Amino acid sequence: MIATLTQEQRAAALAELPEWTVVAEPDGISRRFVFSDFVAAFGFMTRVAILAEKADHHPEWSNVYNRVDIVLTTHDAGGLSQRDVDLAHAINSLLE
Amino acid sequence: MIATLTQEQRAAALAELPEWTVVAEPDGISRRFVFSDFVAAFGFMTRVAILAEKADHHPEWSNVYNRVDIVLTTHDAGGLSQRDVDLAHAINSLLE
Repeated sequence: MIATLTQEQRAAALAELPEWTVVAEPDGISRRFVFSDFVAAFGFMTRVAILAEKADHHPEWSNVYNRVDIVLTTHDAGGLSQRDVDLAHAINSLLE
Repeated sequence: MIATLTQEQRAAALAELPEWTVVAEPDGISRRFVFSDFVAAFGFMTRVAILAEKADHHPEWSNVYNRVDIVLTTHDAGGLSQRDVDLAHAINSLLE
């Protein structure tokens, strides 16, 4: 069983992820990414897909042309867990 | 400018796409695809992405683990067009 973050852990984690927004349903974090076109957006999604599969932790995400919306939450925990925080940092690193 | 389908064209097209459901917002068609796991689902998405880019017509779609939801609509036309019908058939063909 994976645990959700405590309030202290959560606050500390979110402070280091200023690009991500807390969402309520499901309890998690989200970020919108905008690229130049569909190929750039889907190329990014492919990189995220490989990261996610390696981490065995998968996003809830959608794409419309050059836009990718990612929500990270941990169903097994019923909310935000360290897995989401780790994947968010890994996704951020793709864009550096 | 791309035209939406007439009522007759629309009825004929939908009759040949029984796996797709009409959606209202946006006016278009949708289909849910369920696979064995994330790798299978994302592999399918990659094939759809290449089809879509070749057709210069892109889906609105989302993925959660082994599930892919695709909506096809034509923003430039303000609704369902022949482009959506053609892409739906091409997507169906991937699964044959």
